[in-house]
Amino acid sequence: MAHDAPEEQIRVVVAKVESMGLRAHPIPGAERTAIGITGNSGPLNPAEFETLPGVRAAIPVTRPYKLVGREVRPEGSVVRVAGVEIGGPAFPVIAGPCAVESERMMIDTARALRSAGADLLRGGAYKPRSSPYAFQGLGEEGLRILARVRAETGLPVVTEALDVESFPRVEEVADMVQIGARNMQNSGLLRRAGRSTRPVLLKRGMSATLEELLMAAEYILSEGNHQVVLCERGVRTFSDHSRNTMDLNVVPAVQSLSHLPIIVDPSHGTGRRDRVAPLARAALAVGASGLIVEVHPDPERALSDGPQSLRFEQFEALMRELRAMAPTLGRTVSAPVQQQARK
Amino acid sequence: MAHDAPEEQIRVVVAKVESMGLRAHPIPGAERTAIGITGNSGPLNPAEFETLPGVRAAIPVTRPYKLVGREVRPEGSVVRVAGVEIGGPAFPVIAGPCAVESERMMIDTARALRSAGADLLRGGAYKPRSSPYAFQGLGEEGLRILARVRAETGLPVVTEALDVESFPRVEEVADMVQIGARNMQNSGLLRRAGRSTRPVLLKRGMSATLEELLMAAEYILSEGNHQVVLCERGVRTFSDHSRNTMDLNVVPAVQSLSHLPIIVDPSHGTGRRDRVAPLARAALAVGASGLIVEVHPDPERALSDGPQSLRFEQFEALMRELRAMAPTLGRTVSAPVQQQARK
Amino acid sequence: MAHDAPEEQIRVVVAKVESMGLRAHPIPGAERTAIGITGNSGPLNPAEFETLPGVRAAIPVTRPYKLVGREVRPEGSVVRVAGVEIGGPAFPVIAGPCAVESERMMIDTARALRSAGADLLRGGAYKPRSSPYAFQGLGEEGLRILARVRAETGLPVVTEALDVESFPRVEEVADMVQIGARNMQNSGLLRRAGRSTRPVLLKRGMSATLEELLMAAEYILSEGNHQVVLCERGVRTFSDHSRNTMDLNVVPAVQSLSHLPIIVDPSHGTGRRDRVAPLARAALAVGASGLIVEVHPDPERALSDGPQSLRFEQFEALMRELRAMAPTLGRTVSAPVQQQARK
Amino acid sequence: MAHDAPEEQIRVVVAKVESMGLRAHPIPGAERTAIGITGNSGPLNPAEFETLPGVRAAIPVTRPYKLVGREVRPEGSVVRVAGVEIGGPAFPVIAGPCAVESERMMIDTARALRSAGADLLRGGAYKPRSSPYAFQGLGEEGLRILARVRAETGLPVVTEALDVESFPRVEEVADMVQIGARNMQNSGLLRRAGRSTRPVLLKRGMSATLEELLMAAEYILSEGNHQVVLCERGVRTFSDHSRNTMDLNVVPAVQSLSHLPIIVDPSHGTGRRDRVAPLARAALAVGASGLIVEVHPDPERALSDGPQSLRFEQFEALMRELRAMAPTLGRTVSAPVQQQARK
Repeated sequence: MAHDAPEEQIRVVVAKVESMGLRAHPIPGAERTAIGITGNSGPLNPAEFETLPGVRAAIPVTRPYKLVGREVRPEGSVVRVAGVEIGGPAFPVIAGPCAVESERMMIDTARALRSAGADLLRGGAYKPRSSPYAFQGLGEEGLRILARVRAETGLPVVTEALDVESFPRVEEVADMVQIGARNMQNSGLLRRAGRSTRPVLLKRGMSATLEELLMAAEYILSEGNHQVVLCERGVRTFSDHSRNTMDLNVVPAVQSLSHLPIIVDPSHGTGRRDRVAPLARAALAVGASGLIVEVHPDPERALSDGPQSLRFEQFEALMRELRAMAPTLGRTVSAPVQQQARK
Repeated sequence: MAHDAPEEQIRVVVAKVESMGLRAHPIPGAERTAIGITGNSGPLNPAEFETLPGVRAAIPVTRPYKLVGREVRPEGSVVRVAGVEIGGPAFPVIAGPCAVESERMMIDTARALRSAGADLLRGGAYKPRSSPYAFQGLGEEGLRILARVRAETGLPVVTEALDVESFPRVEEVADMVQIGARNMQNSGLLRRAGRSTRPVLLKRGMSATLEELLMAAEYILSEGNHQVVLCERGVRTFSDHSRNTMDLNVVPAVQSLSHLPIIVDPSHGTGRRDRVAPLARAALAVGASGLIVEVHPDPERALSDGPQSLRFEQFEALMRELRAMAPTLGRTVSAPVQQQARK
Repeated sequence: MAHDAPEEQIRVVVAKVESMGLRAHPIPGAERTAIGITGNSGPLNPAEFETLPGVRAAIPVTRPYKLVGREVRPEGSVVRVAGVEIGGPAFPVIAGPCAVESERMMIDTARALRSAGADLLRGGAYKPRSSPYAFQGLGEEGLRILARVRAETGLPVVTEALDVESFPRVEEVADMVQIGARNMQNSGLLRRAGRSTRPVLLKRGMSATLEELLMAAEYILSEGNHQVVLCERGVRTFSDHSRNTMDLNVVPAVQSLSHLPIIVDPSHGTGRRDRVAPLARAALAVGASGLIVEVHPDPERALSDGPQSLRFEQFEALMRELRAMAPTLGRTVSAPVQQQARK
Repeated sequence: MAHDAPEEQIRVVVAKVESMGLRAHPIPGAERTAIGITGNSGPLNPAEFETLPGVRAAIPVTRPYKLVGREVRPEGSVVRVAGVEIGGPAFPVIAGPCAVESERMMIDTARALRSAGADLLRGGAYKPRSSPYAFQGLGEEGLRILARVRAETGLPVVTEALDVESFPRVEEVADMVQIGARNMQNSGLLRRAGRSTRPVLLKRGMSATLEELLMAAEYILSEGNHQVVLCERGVRTFSDHSRNTMDLNVVPAVQSLSHLPIIVDPSHGTGRRDRVAPLARAALAVGASGLIVEVHPDPERALSDGPQSLRFEQFEALMRELRAMAPTLGRTVSAPVQQQARK
């Protein structure tokens, strides 16, 4: 649509699209609103739309993904999570333990993270595990803990939804709902996330191509939820010196093909505590939109992912490094927040 | 348990296990019943069980999987699907289109398959797709068609369940429920399949290690359903001359580690019609328990997977080749079934 | 060239090609002679050649490889190694230890192999090793042993050339010179092999694409040696249950793109003795032109590759299996040769 | 050896080692000299050495590599190339075209690179190519051009040796000799480089594990040349959005296992000009010892690797970015050198 197209003209275009039996997806941007069209089985005639008032151009999209393509929002998307912007000049950091283990541990962790400058708190109430006998998370009790910790510390919460059944409960508590790597192609779950009002953090599958990652995001956008942040968390290769191989090449690749922000997870991407800081710095340098990193008060006793979790002081040191580097890259990292002892 | 341990002795052991807060899984075998124990967080004292009447030996399992391990049924499992045995000397062939497209097409296909000697009919009513805009299957109508085709032709049906929601409907119709590669680590779906009375066909994920495949099966068995057949369908590698790289090495590897049968899918494993027959022969030669192969009456017009679907006459030729080879390997391939024209 | 084109007409075409500053490669086939042209930087005018007497057609080859392409010899090449045909209906088996360790051991092995029906003897005098401290082969002494063993047993010899320096010595003894996986892109060595009168066994590199394998063969053919046999020996992937992942899909792929025969090495392809026989059977079933397999009189004491070497009786059992299967696939496996005790 | 062990004590230890039929490798370090011992087939008795004067400790190395292990030089190695230090606080940048194409082009490029702050000039006289018909480099004429360009501009030269035959010619001209990815396991070439007095740049093979890379370096060190710099240049994976997948995880992994410096090649690692700068920044941030990057005056007309070569102004912009970031990481990037127009 034209820069100054009024709401009314957008409605007319949407009505026109729908009258053709297709689906219209208005996508408001900083400069203009784009209207994605899906449901067509072949090419449409651009003239049908370009003659409508307020339409600036009708651009055929030949890629298999449409709503996530860079064309529909060339300036890039900024996703807002409880006041934290992902996709802008800030470099937000999501931190916390792999799993919610207890309220005490979550409160302590959240305070330490705040003091170090973290923007969002991560922590799984529902954990996908390779073994049916491994700790699967505290479930609803974990969600209640997260809600209390947010109330207590003010840190917004990112937590994973494992299935359609538990989605409503997760969505109620989470400021951002995570879809994990194992579920990247779980189309039912993606569709459900697409009907949520919460922003979604979509992790790349272990051997997903870039196109598959973008198509997974397309599932979410096609249901109406445009607040999607992608996450590179390492891919599976022959290379055996680290748990996964971080594919940082994918960051500029996403940025050229899609308007969605992409953040990086060096904890899963390396699998080793002593590799997290170097790769976190690399994520900032490569131009990622943010970071998600595992931190635990006592990694040796963690119920999951201990070996890749930073200790508090390691996280603090990392934040200082990032804060020093960021301005030379035109970015900012949040400052530590002075915490009052409340209890 | 000892060879001749009566039911009563088994009950005593189960009660003992449960009295310790653990879970007992009696697994009847051809020669003896094994009782898997799960729920323990550390090693148990073998003496606690070996002193019970009828107990032959208490064997600690150090692998992360317990119920799928070869130890619990050294002679291997035979899974029965509507009278067809998978895991025995027969080499059953599951064939059919990628997706159920119409009743006419399914009836024609099922008759052609029967005439060629196929044992089971495959066909998806619910299709997992990379794109939200691609054909997602006929859903419930597809299931109804499958039920009618089975009634008409007598061929038992294998079809995929995509999620927990539609599982009951799939289970009602299917003689064997398929869990697809994308869902191999969908623990909710695996658990649901574990509570089904239907045999399950579990496909290996695109980049799943052997251990992850066995752990996925363990999810199903740990809920009580021991009728699981694994399926190698190609893995994702750098190698770009075929859609996937068939990992036939995994067949003897599964057979040494697990009692579960493993079949091979050369259609997805190669992605090209002209490669299916050579790799199907290789699957028989390598010792797989059976075959699943895509066949379509008119592959050029298929709604999905056309390039890798065999035509009827190609499938018939393949069956003749397999039938010739099988006896030299101590195996048998079903003979063509004379069809009466009914309509 | 036409079916009955006399030598004189071929000479005229070659002269014409050379007069244009290009290179002509006459490739005699069972039905007709093809003349490959290389050295052109852009497309040539077919009419320049089609008007010459005896020319049947001038076919532009758009693939990066020219001389190895199926087009130049649609019926496929048969490579003859001291009377053994690779690429025809026979399924020749190359067997022997990884490395030549002593004369006694080679004589014993060669006799056992002959008795079991092997066609060619393998054994490395020069060994490429990952570690500079590992056994690097007996070198020239190893070659002398191979020569004596051939004289003694009549088994022709396949052995590896590691570099240009030692090539002449290897070539003098070997009936077929092997280029190993690590050297697949060693262009100097490939060129040297291209100037040899010996047939060459070219192993696929650990992560070589099919196109790279064919281009490596093209290096050899472009120097004038057309007697090249390719070998699939497993590729490197994430899959960790076997040393490498056998890519049997590559066998029909090579056969559709190239006229060169391809054999399979299940010893390196699996890395485990107990997996060799199933994959060897699969190699025959998939349509490979032959087999190369490691056999050792005492694998536990082997200086290299012990875990993947068959014992004599295992090799004999494998040969029996192959001999039983082969006729059902239109192939033949050599019969055991009665050995006279000479010493 | 002890911190202040005199030369004489070192000689005594070396003599002791040699008297046992083993090989001693004295490795001088900033703080102390280590003496590597190779040639033993089993463990040695530490007491045999610890009782000698000046011996601080006898440390058994259980890894397959010995001389490249971090243990022998815990402070890390600094390799000096014509005055440029690799492995210290500086972040040296090697830049230039893939291949030497002409003297004019090399002079222009070298001047532009100097003005932008590059430390070393790269350019291949001998090019390893997948196709025998592709441009293979200017050979000796290329070497002569490199020598003249160094004389003219003062930039030291890094160029590749392809084989043992041409090694002496390359070594005569090169300030640092490159061993390419395809030759990483060419043991003859590695040994020859080990007998050179030039520092060696050893690129990781396309699918080499970290251990294989270190073992390849061990080949060079075991012949006496300790001046080895490793290079990560991307590995081959399923991921198809870039030519290779940069494995930046390997940088801290090398640094924890080995004392050898490791630099990064984002040109081959991404294969696309627009991805080079982000990944070059990431290389600095992850802690690599330096950078090697392709720059060409006119990439569209480059004889090889055009799509991944930076233009002059892109390289200059990248150097500015790196120069801004470096101090926040405790590193320095060379300043531009004012060039006098001489011709």
